[in-house]
Amino acid sequence: MLKDGERIDDLEIKGLKIIQNPEWFCFGIDAVLLSDFAYARKKEKVVDLGSGSGIIPLLIYAKYEPSEIIGIEIQEEVSDMARRSILLNNLEDKIKIYKGDIKDCFKDIGINCYDVVVSNPPYKKGSTGIINPKDKKAISRHEVLITLDELIFSASRLLKGGGRFYMIHRPERLNDIFLTLNKNKFSPKRLRFVHPYIGKAPRMVLVEALKSGGDFLKIEEPLYVYNEDGSYTDEILKIYGRC
Amino acid sequence: MLKDGERIDDLEIKGLKIIQNPEWFCFGIDAVLLSDFAYARKKEKVVDLGSGSGIIPLLIYAKYEPSEIIGIEIQEEVSDMARRSILLNNLEDKIKIYKGDIKDCFKDIGINCYDVVVSNPPYKKGSTGIINPKDKKAISRHEVLITLDELIFSASRLLKGGGRFYMIHRPERLNDIFLTLNKNKFSPKRLRFVHPYIGKAPRMVLVEALKSGGDFLKIEEPLYVYNEDGSYTDEILKIYGRC
Repeated sequence: MLKDGERIDDLEIKGLKIIQNPEWFCFGIDAVLLSDFAYARKKEKVVDLGSGSGIIPLLIYAKYEPSEIIGIEIQEEVSDMARRSILLNNLEDKIKIYKGDIKDCFKDIGINCYDVVVSNPPYKKGSTGIINPKDKKAISRHEVLITLDELIFSASRLLKGGGRFYMIHRPERLNDIFLTLNKNKFSPKRLRFVHPYIGKAPRMVLVEALKSGGDFLKIEEPLYVYNEDGSYTDEILKIYGRC
Repeated sequence: MLKDGERIDDLEIKGLKIIQNPEWFCFGIDAVLLSDFAYARKKEKVVDLGSGSGIIPLLIYAKYEPSEIIGIEIQEEVSDMARRSILLNNLEDKIKIYKGDIKDCFKDIGINCYDVVVSNPPYKKGSTGIINPKDKKAISRHEVLITLDELIFSASRLLKGGGRFYMIHRPERLNDIFLTLNKNKFSPKRLRFVHPYIGKAPRMVLVEALKSGGDFLKIEEPLYVYNEDGSYTDEILKIYGRC
């Protein structure tokens, strides 16, 4: 089950486990926050764009048990590892991991037919300074293989009208996010900023957008990660507890 | 100097005073926060769109002493009152109040020639439920006489390339704000959300945009208005102290 350099971590929810390779990229708080911010009903079909280790499909399944989750991951070895995590949890009927490109995955898995799309995409614009374009950490962090524009275009193609797109991103990309969502028939519906501490500028933003939805936007209360003493806030502990 | 129903209030900064009519609309914390968030250099020329009682020109003058401030106010009686406030402070060489329409004021006062435009516009979309369209409070609060689109268009016409636009608005209008700024050659540069309390959703957002500027956006640290016990936070007290 395990290949060189891999380890199994306990997700501490419903007995789920995940295979990770610390040399590549381990999931972080952003995946946990996004899975908590997103929502899926039991009858809904969900796609995760840029699935990495498969953490988001696993957490979304643990929380909501939607009828089907598809994870799209372009890197062969990473998608293979994610597929083994799904097998390890005996969830192969519920979660499929496809090795594929976000940019055109809708041609294979279907257009206008999903209820929910989630994504924890690379945050950084362009690929300035990337030496090795096969570097797995760089691919997760920089827009080497997919831009925000391409990601949101694909999300829009995949979703039904009224479908929901959930993403976590950097606050400084907010202008791009709004423009690109609107260009692709999305209305931003909910925004939640994630601040390291009370009184500090936000480092991340959680976004919910509706395809062909109304135009009422709600900016939610801030989410603070740490207390002054560096411990996690009660809300973060609660999110980890139910993730 | 005073007409029926008017009173003189001390601004508690540099001995400045303002005439207000409580029947119409007295300035609120939003004007104070906007004047503090905005910035003007001594050589710069500033326009305030929708000047009301003239509070923003007075506060901006008190803080920055720019070379010239023009306030545009469409309501005859309100612009007359603002003009008398300027006279009361002997600032008629520095601050001019013109009775005029934001929508086409640039035809009279000049295109592409200002460094700074500020505005505390009506927040509420449309004029649903407004019974009397001459109601001064309604005109200040609802888009009866000016829409966000028309306001930002005018701001863009007035400003030089690289000029700065400062506005305070409602967070739920953020999508409209981003789209309209971009449509009118603005790049959002700085955003600061104003929260009533720590942990509560923001009620207002301060926006700085650059005409024909770069695309680096900064979301600043949150501004909290009240402490848990209902008293003003230290930051708000500091802003009032230096306003």
